[in-house]
Amino acid sequence: MGHMGISQEGDTLEPDAVEPAVKIDRARSARRIEEVLDEVSRPRYTRSPTAICRYAFTPEYTNTVGYFATALEELGYETQEDPVGNFIARNRPDGEPTYGVGSHCDSNRNGGRYDGTLGVVAALELCRLDSELNLGLPLQVVVPVEEEASGFGHAMLGSAIMAQAVEEVDLRELRAIDDGKSFWSHAEAAGFEPDRWRECRAPLEQMLGWLELHIEQGRVLQDAEVPIGIVDRIVGIVHADVTIHGSADHAGATPMGIRRDAGIEAARLALEITELARASRSGVVATVGELDLDPGLINVVPGSARLSLDVRGPDGVEVDEVLDKALANAQASAAALGMRVEHSERSRVAPTPMDGRVVDALEGAAQRLSIPHLTMRSGACHDTMHIARHVSAAMVFVPCRDGISHSPREYADPADAALGAEIMLNALLSLASSEPMNDRK
Amino acid sequence: MGHMGISQEGDTLEPDAVEPAVKIDRARSARRIEEVLDEVSRPRYTRSPTAICRYAFTPEYTNTVGYFATALEELGYETQEDPVGNFIARNRPDGEPTYGVGSHCDSNRNGGRYDGTLGVVAALELCRLDSELNLGLPLQVVVPVEEEASGFGHAMLGSAIMAQAVEEVDLRELRAIDDGKSFWSHAEAAGFEPDRWRECRAPLEQMLGWLELHIEQGRVLQDAEVPIGIVDRIVGIVHADVTIHGSADHAGATPMGIRRDAGIEAARLALEITELARASRSGVVATVGELDLDPGLINVVPGSARLSLDVRGPDGVEVDEVLDKALANAQASAAALGMRVEHSERSRVAPTPMDGRVVDALEGAAQRLSIPHLTMRSGACHDTMHIARHVSAAMVFVPCRDGISHSPREYADPADAALGAEIMLNALLSLASSEPMNDRK
Repeated sequence: MGHMGISQEGDTLEPDAVEPAVKIDRARSARRIEEVLDEVSRPRYTRSPTAICRYAFTPEYTNTVGYFATALEELGYETQEDPVGNFIARNRPDGEPTYGVGSHCDSNRNGGRYDGTLGVVAALELCRLDSELNLGLPLQVVVPVEEEASGFGHAMLGSAIMAQAVEEVDLRELRAIDDGKSFWSHAEAAGFEPDRWRECRAPLEQMLGWLELHIEQGRVLQDAEVPIGIVDRIVGIVHADVTIHGSADHAGATPMGIRRDAGIEAARLALEITELARASRSGVVATVGELDLDPGLINVVPGSARLSLDVRGPDGVEVDEVLDKALANAQASAAALGMRVEHSERSRVAPTPMDGRVVDALEGAAQRLSIPHLTMRSGACHDTMHIARHVSAAMVFVPCRDGISHSPREYADPADAALGAEIMLNALLSLASSEPMNDRK
Repeated sequence: MGHMGISQEGDTLEPDAVEPAVKIDRARSARRIEEVLDEVSRPRYTRSPTAICRYAFTPEYTNTVGYFATALEELGYETQEDPVGNFIARNRPDGEPTYGVGSHCDSNRNGGRYDGTLGVVAALELCRLDSELNLGLPLQVVVPVEEEASGFGHAMLGSAIMAQAVEEVDLRELRAIDDGKSFWSHAEAAGFEPDRWRECRAPLEQMLGWLELHIEQGRVLQDAEVPIGIVDRIVGIVHADVTIHGSADHAGATPMGIRRDAGIEAARLALEITELARASRSGVVATVGELDLDPGLINVVPGSARLSLDVRGPDGVEVDEVLDKALANAQASAAALGMRVEHSERSRVAPTPMDGRVVDALEGAAQRLSIPHLTMRSGACHDTMHIARHVSAAMVFVPCRDGISHSPREYADPADAALGAEIMLNALLSLASSEPMNDRK
C-alpha cells in the first residue's frame, strides 16, 4: 500500500548505530499542544461558529498568525511577514543558516482544528523544547499563507510564491472568492507589498533543511495502529476531465442493442481505471469524484456524461500509464458503439521525492526513541512540495481519526503530535551534528 | 428487439382472407396533416418562441383544443369537455356506441410538434376521411388533458381520471408547477367542475374500441425502415432509486485497498443491470438516467452515490427478476466492502397488453393495404394504458427521426401519419363489420 516497512519498538539496531536521543516530557508536550489548539480554535480565530474557517487577509487569519508570533517572540524569536504575508520567525539573525519547520494555519471554509495548524503548533512546541533544553538549534518557523485555496482558489499559494513557482501575470489575475477583488489589492490593503514577491524566496536560500508535520488525511496509520508516518515521497497528480458523447434516447423506446449510453461508458471507465490502479506496481490511486449525466432524467438514456479523474502515484510514469490505458480503452469501447470520448487535463504535478538524508534522520530518530512508525508516501499535496524544490525536505504524518479531514469532525491526538515534535527535534540534532546539507540546489 | 415480425408488401395472404380495402389519397391526407400541424405550431398555440409548450388550463392549450373542436364541428361532430377538461367529440348522439380515436395535444415544456398532437391530427384526418368517403363509422375523438405532466407533474392525468385510476384525495392535493395552486382550483377557474370527476368515465362506457396513433419515440422503425408500428403491448415499468453509502475519503491519502467508494459500486450496479437487461428473454430495458455523487469533488472518494433505475419490459415477472437480481448483487458487492445499499420504488406500472382483436384488425388492414409494418411493443407510457383497462385498445406508431422526442428537434413525416390514418380507418371498418367487441369489461 506504499508504506515501505514498519520499525516497531522491538526492532534490533546495530549497537554502533545507536546515537543518544534527547527525550522529552511527552505528556507535558501533548498538554501544551492541546492548549495551543484550544486557543486558536476560539471564536477570534475562526469565521464560522461551527468549524474552523480562516484564510488570507481576514482578521481571524491575522489573529492566528499573531498568536504564533507572540509565542515565538516570547522565546526570543525575531518575527516578520514577507511581502505577500508568509510568516517567518527565526532564532538567528537574518542571513544565518537555519533549519525550517512549519506548516500552514489557514483552513478550508468548513474545516477542522488540525489540518495545517497542528504542524505549526508542533513547530512551536519544537522551538519551545529547543529553548527549554538549551539545544541551540538554528531554527526558522515558516507559515505559508493561503495553502487551502479558501481565499483565492489557488492551493499552496504562499509556498509557491516562496519557491518562485508562479508567474506575476497569474498572481495579478488571482481573484478573491468573497468579493472578486484581486489578490494583489487584498495584499496591499493588508499592508503587504506584492510587487516585491520575488524577495519571498530569501528565507529558503539559507535553509539547511525543512520539516513539516501534518495530519495524514487518510486511514493508513490508523489501520496500522502506528502513531507516526515518515514521508519519503509526495505523489504526482493528474487531474483530468473526460466527456463521453452518446445519444439521449427514450429509456423505454430504445432497445438495449441500439443504445449509445454515455452513462454506461462512463461507468465502464470508472471501473476500468480503478482496476488499473489496483493492478499497478507502485500503488497508483485513481478516483472518479465527479460524474454528471446529461440530461440527467430517470427516463432518458444519458446522451453525454462528464467525469473527473484524479490519478496519483509515487511513480509519474506509471501514473501516466494508468491514465493513458484507461483513456485508450474508453476510446475503443466508445468508438465500437459509435460514441466519442473527449478528455482534457486540468492540472499535472510531478511526484516530489523527499530528501533521503532527511528521511534517514527522521527514521533514525524514531528508532532511537523506540517510536513505531511507517515510512510512507503522501497522497495529498503540501507546501513541502514547493519548498522541496529548494531545500532538503521531508514530512512527518500523524494519524487523524478515520482519515476525516477538511471537516469539523477532524481529530488528531495531541500525544501523537508530541511524538512528532520529539522525532523532528532529534532528527534536526542529528542533521546538525553531521555535515551541512544546503548543497542541494 | 421486441418486434414480432415484419409483414412486407410481398407477403402472401390466404386468398379467402383478403377483404377489400378502402384506399385514400395518401398525398392529399399527408398535406392536410402537415397543414394542421403547421397551424397548431403557430404562436397562439405555444408558450415558447422556440418549442411547443402547452399544458392544461393555459390559453395556448385551450386554443389548441379549440382548433380541433372547430374542425370537428365542421364535420358535424358534437363537441364537449368533460368535468376536468378532457375533450370529447362524437358523430353519434351521447350514449350510442362509438369507436374512440385520439391522443393528447399538450406537450412537455420544451417539446416538439408531434408527440401526442400528431395522434390528434391523425384522428381528425380519419374523421375527415370517414365523412368524405361516406363510410358511416360511429366515431368519438378523445383528447385527454395533461398527459405530459407539464402543468401538475402527474403524467396521463386526464386519461387516469377517465379510467377512475385516481383517488379524489390525491387529485385535490395536486399542485401546479407554475404557481403551487391546486389542480382543483385551476380546473374550477377554467370553468370545469372537478367535483364531478367520476362522470369522466362515461365516454369509455359505450366505446367499442380505441386506437391511438403516436410517434414511436425510439429508433426501431427508423432502423428497420418501416413506416408503421402496430403496438401489441405497452411495457411494465418500475422506477426506483438506489443509494449506496460508502466513505468519503481523501483521493490521495486513501489506498485503493481500503476504500469504500460509493461511486464505483454505483458504476458496477449500472453495468450489472445493463447486462442483465441485455440477457433477458423478453427484451427488458434498463436505464440509469440519474447519478449523483456526494460530495462530488474531484479529489474526494464519493461517500455516497444515488442512482435512478428505470426498468421496463413486456413481461412483468422478468422486469422484477432483472431488478431484484441487480439489487441483490449490488447488496452483496457493497456488503463485502463494508458498504450499505438502500433502495426505494418511486412507481410501478404493470405491462398493458393490447387487445388481440384490435391488433389483428390493424395488422390485417396494413396487409391489405400493402403497408410495411412491425408489430412491436411500446416502451413509453401512453393514455392508452388507462383506456385499455376499460376498452379493447391498440396503438399505431410512426417513426420519428433519430428517435428524438420531447425536443424542438422532434420530427415525423406527415406521410407516415397518413398511412397510419388509412390503416386505422380500415381496421375500424373491419371491426365494425364483425361482431361488437364491447364485451371486454
